[in-house]
Amino acid sequence: MTEIRLPFSELVERLSAIFVKQGLPGRVASVLATNCATCQRDGALSHGVFRIPAYVSTLQSGWGSPAALPEIDPGEGALIRVDAHGGFAQVALEEAMPLLRERVRTQGVAALAIRNSQHFSAIWPDVEPFAEEGLMALSVVNSMAVVVPPGGKTPVFGTNPMAFACPREGQAPYVWDQASSALAHGDVQIAAREGRALEPGCGVDAEGQPTTDPEVVLNGGALLPFGGYKGASIAMTIEILAAAFTGGAFSTEVDWSDHPGAKIPLTGQFLLVADPAYGGATGFGARVAALSDTVRAAGQERLPGDRRHRVRAEALEKGVALTQADLDMLAEYL
Amino acid sequence: MTEIRLPFSELVERLSAIFVKQGLPGRVASVLATNCATCQRDGALSHGVFRIPAYVSTLQSGWGSPAALPEIDPGEGALIRVDAHGGFAQVALEEAMPLLRERVRTQGVAALAIRNSQHFSAIWPDVEPFAEEGLMALSVVNSMAVVVPPGGKTPVFGTNPMAFACPREGQAPYVWDQASSALAHGDVQIAAREGRALEPGCGVDAEGQPTTDPEVVLNGGALLPFGGYKGASIAMTIEILAAAFTGGAFSTEVDWSDHPGAKIPLTGQFLLVADPAYGGATGFGARVAALSDTVRAAGQERLPGDRRHRVRAEALEKGVALTQADLDMLAEYL
Repeated sequence: MTEIRLPFSELVERLSAIFVKQGLPGRVASVLATNCATCQRDGALSHGVFRIPAYVSTLQSGWGSPAALPEIDPGEGALIRVDAHGGFAQVALEEAMPLLRERVRTQGVAALAIRNSQHFSAIWPDVEPFAEEGLMALSVVNSMAVVVPPGGKTPVFGTNPMAFACPREGQAPYVWDQASSALAHGDVQIAAREGRALEPGCGVDAEGQPTTDPEVVLNGGALLPFGGYKGASIAMTIEILAAAFTGGAFSTEVDWSDHPGAKIPLTGQFLLVADPAYGGATGFGARVAALSDTVRAAGQERLPGDRRHRVRAEALEKGVALTQADLDMLAEYL
Repeated sequence: MTEIRLPFSELVERLSAIFVKQGLPGRVASVLATNCATCQRDGALSHGVFRIPAYVSTLQSGWGSPAALPEIDPGEGALIRVDAHGGFAQVALEEAMPLLRERVRTQGVAALAIRNSQHFSAIWPDVEPFAEEGLMALSVVNSMAVVVPPGGKTPVFGTNPMAFACPREGQAPYVWDQASSALAHGDVQIAAREGRALEPGCGVDAEGQPTTDPEVVLNGGALLPFGGYKGASIAMTIEILAAAFTGGAFSTEVDWSDHPGAKIPLTGQFLLVADPAYGGATGFGARVAALSDTVRAAGQERLPGDRRHRVRAEALEKGVALTQADLDMLAEYL
């Protein structure tokens, strides 16, 4: 397939126009477009323009309040609570960013608890900007119940991603973003499409019995947490942080049955930011760089983020890679 | 083996006397004794009186500054930095507790960054007390390099445990504590002693090749992270939080070669506390209880902490369970 390269700003404009055409305010459209274009730019294709049809079908379904602007309770402490009012989590984060930045610099640590928010993207774009400013950030989002607990047969957890970012002197920030399920839901769909079996330990059938058939997982079955009982503890804790603590919905509470076409969970997000230089501490970025070097020297060839940062550098030079099919699809919505 | 039951307070007194006899100040001895007796009481036997000989051999090795009292930099924000000065992390936590409690109630979220600290116990005892006060707590500690990254052959990470606790209305707090290695180091030792093979995926030999032989893992080999690449990201992040962020040593930097008999890592600990009721929010404990019920109903028979809380209840009624061999061992140090 021919690869087409589009300048980043042009891709953002096209995506923004699509969101505006679907009725979103310019501000919301711009945040979502930048987020989606950023994923495409970095080669995180499962969260790139591939997601546009599902964004559109959700926007047309009447689900949530996608045009809503967030309401920030600034308080006076290190914890900032935000009600996204059914809008997008990234918009809430963008809006709260200046206050969050100010609080973490004065307090050393600060947190954002977003509730009633839609999230349909990777979460490394939510944490990486903090690392670029010298801060450390950790975030979790819950989603919709597609993961069974160990030994269980009813899905209760979302794929519940977690992401971390921090600065690394002389290198791109250290950034990872991973699901707490053994596989991302999208990977199961791709395996089904390609007729490939899943690795053992990733999914169960409707009776809770292990299966490697992606069709069985998708039709009444469910995913398993990564790493057995330990991953299940993490998946459950993400429900607690992103939903119980923020006041958002649990993954089991997401019910879009009255909104055919809706595909975006409306739950909550928790984000913690810390300032390594607080209190005059020095050397953090250099030590993280040294640790990364140690880990590479020990034999781990690729650290999280390596590929994305390489693809990004190429995209900034040559433009964002897209296929003709991507462009045709976007044109349909323009 | 006959089970002997000793009142909790009597066990604490005996253990405290042992620590004092090894030269520790009463305050330090009391914190360590209570911590160790708490593990024994809850049936967390790998961190109970079983650890006393290694505590003693470390204390006699001249390693660290076990009698040191921590120095707290109170600052004015939500992040409190503590230099344990080579003493025990639990003493630093105990000392910082009143300030941490005050800060989390006024700020909504607060963190403790302890450096130059020894830790030789489970970390659920560090987080569970917060849950009993209605707070949520998350903590990580790095240790000594015994875990290789995926694809690697040189150990770079500690078994790096993580623990979480939060209140749960009408039930004991939700508490978990798990290593970021596939197995705890103690489990490998027990398997070696019993001549049992390890599960596949837990360890490698000196060349980084997979092995299920515990002797090979213990002699030049290493453990693997739990959950593959995802667990490795978490293990590395624990090094970043507990060491780079606090100013403590990385697991690879622990060097006790001049102190034969030393067995306790001297690194750092990161602890985050958040107040679910901050800003007038309500219902957190009830929602976590409901989530726990949902997870049980979905088929996970045992949630983390269930067994410990059951064993504890029995111990509070009948006394802490010990064997005659335990008592004989303790008597040798008294």
